[in-house]
Amino acid sequence: MRLIMAQSKKMRKNMKKNYKMTIAYDGSRYYGWEHQPGIELTIQGKIESVLNKMLSLKKGDSVKLISSGRTDAGVHARAMCANVHMDTKLSEKEIKDYLQSYLPEDISVNEVKIAGDRFHARYNAKGKTYRYSFYYGEDKPVFERKYLSILDKKPNTDKMRHAARLMMGEHDFKSFCGNNKMKKSTVRNLDNIEIREDGPYIRIYVHGDGFLQNMVRIIAGTLLEVGYGKINPSDIPAIIEAKDRQKAGFTAEARGLCLMKVDYN
Amino acid sequence: MRLIMAQSKKMRKNMKKNYKMTIAYDGSRYYGWEHQPGIELTIQGKIESVLNKMLSLKKGDSVKLISSGRTDAGVHARAMCANVHMDTKLSEKEIKDYLQSYLPEDISVNEVKIAGDRFHARYNAKGKTYRYSFYYGEDKPVFERKYLSILDKKPNTDKMRHAARLMMGEHDFKSFCGNNKMKKSTVRNLDNIEIREDGPYIRIYVHGDGFLQNMVRIIAGTLLEVGYGKINPSDIPAIIEAKDRQKAGFTAEARGLCLMKVDYN
Repeated sequence: MRLIMAQSKKMRKNMKKNYKMTIAYDGSRYYGWEHQPGIELTIQGKIESVLNKMLSLKKGDSVKLISSGRTDAGVHARAMCANVHMDTKLSEKEIKDYLQSYLPEDISVNEVKIAGDRFHARYNAKGKTYRYSFYYGEDKPVFERKYLSILDKKPNTDKMRHAARLMMGEHDFKSFCGNNKMKKSTVRNLDNIEIREDGPYIRIYVHGDGFLQNMVRIIAGTLLEVGYGKINPSDIPAIIEAKDRQKAGFTAEARGLCLMKVDYN
Repeated sequence: MRLIMAQSKKMRKNMKKNYKMTIAYDGSRYYGWEHQPGIELTIQGKIESVLNKMLSLKKGDSVKLISSGRTDAGVHARAMCANVHMDTKLSEKEIKDYLQSYLPEDISVNEVKIAGDRFHARYNAKGKTYRYSFYYGEDKPVFERKYLSILDKKPNTDKMRHAARLMMGEHDFKSFCGNNKMKKSTVRNLDNIEIREDGPYIRIYVHGDGFLQNMVRIIAGTLLEVGYGKINPSDIPAIIEAKDRQKAGFTAEARGLCLMKVDYN
């Protein structure tokens, strides 16, 4: 009996296909992307529970979404990527439609596509684009308030651009890592930081091969302190060199951050 | 004693100035504009309570905001206008700053200006622009979901424009009035209805000298039924002529509606 069950489980595993998903979400009310036991409100948890329902899976058999990475509580995404192995006769479109109708309004699975069996949303991610949004307008941004970090006055964006140029390239970004127990390499390659201005909006686009915990928020906070004259742009190399979180600026609030894109080959 | 109090009250009244305010709000969590006894969450109620605090007024003396009109529960505004008579030494800017810091994030008083004593936000309003926003895109609009009414498929906007043209002009809009006990005149002049398309967004801009209860939402609902072929554009004159709410289309949901502008001389 055991043998038969083991065999049927193996057969079923072989019938699983690997689905790649592209997901947008308003992270405002979630405890971040990652499913955590006992915490109901995570984006991963919401999607997995809809997929379990779709597949009529029992607890032990539940699906496991693999994402390109995590996002913190309150952080948003326009195109998070994830993959999941599932055994289902439903078409890609049927899966997408099911997800869209059962997921809440603040999570949208915009694409479901069969990927190669070996596709892995985290290991295969080649790069990511994040955007951090500041706003210093006189009127309160009542309709976008959950997606902006609000400033009292305009920072000096020339200085911020100067500092940003000095952050670019391959460095050990330990000073920009929110996890001080990080054991793995903290070397990352930031190939672009672009500061765009649009009226009272300042948007920082960051592209790199990977990001440490809170890294974009610490970059944004540090650039803001540069913009307000608390940090000199020319201090950036020494801040990086120090490999000390205390030397960099503050962690800008989650709501200004959005994962825009994940690159794959 | 009574006489002295009455006199001082009169004198104080004479020291009151009339302030005009321009207000933006996300109406999602409010029971509409109008202060209602026992209902905490109204936009008018929120602003009045901050002003009462600012002026240290007791209950009987509380300020009274006069608005250009009401908005329903869940309806938004980019530029609602209101006026209020107040006796204060604070400057316009100080009043605005006080309001901005004590009002919640979803209400913004963007302008405070001393107006003529006889300015009345409702009686002096010459016209209003409302915008109703529909969205029929494939992706769920996670970041704008509270400001759009979502459609399953694209309606025929040519037919909608045809119908809109037939609604324009001075008519008795009783068929488009949500209050069937309305005693006053239901004649209004709609001088413009414009249907703008932008990708999967359809935005209906309506300008008129005044609007009945739910009128823009019933216009939007009726135009949508035209767009889906349930109502013929050429039926519009008969619908108006009927002066019967049952003949017009459904009341489109509140969240798609936004008061854009109020005109004064």
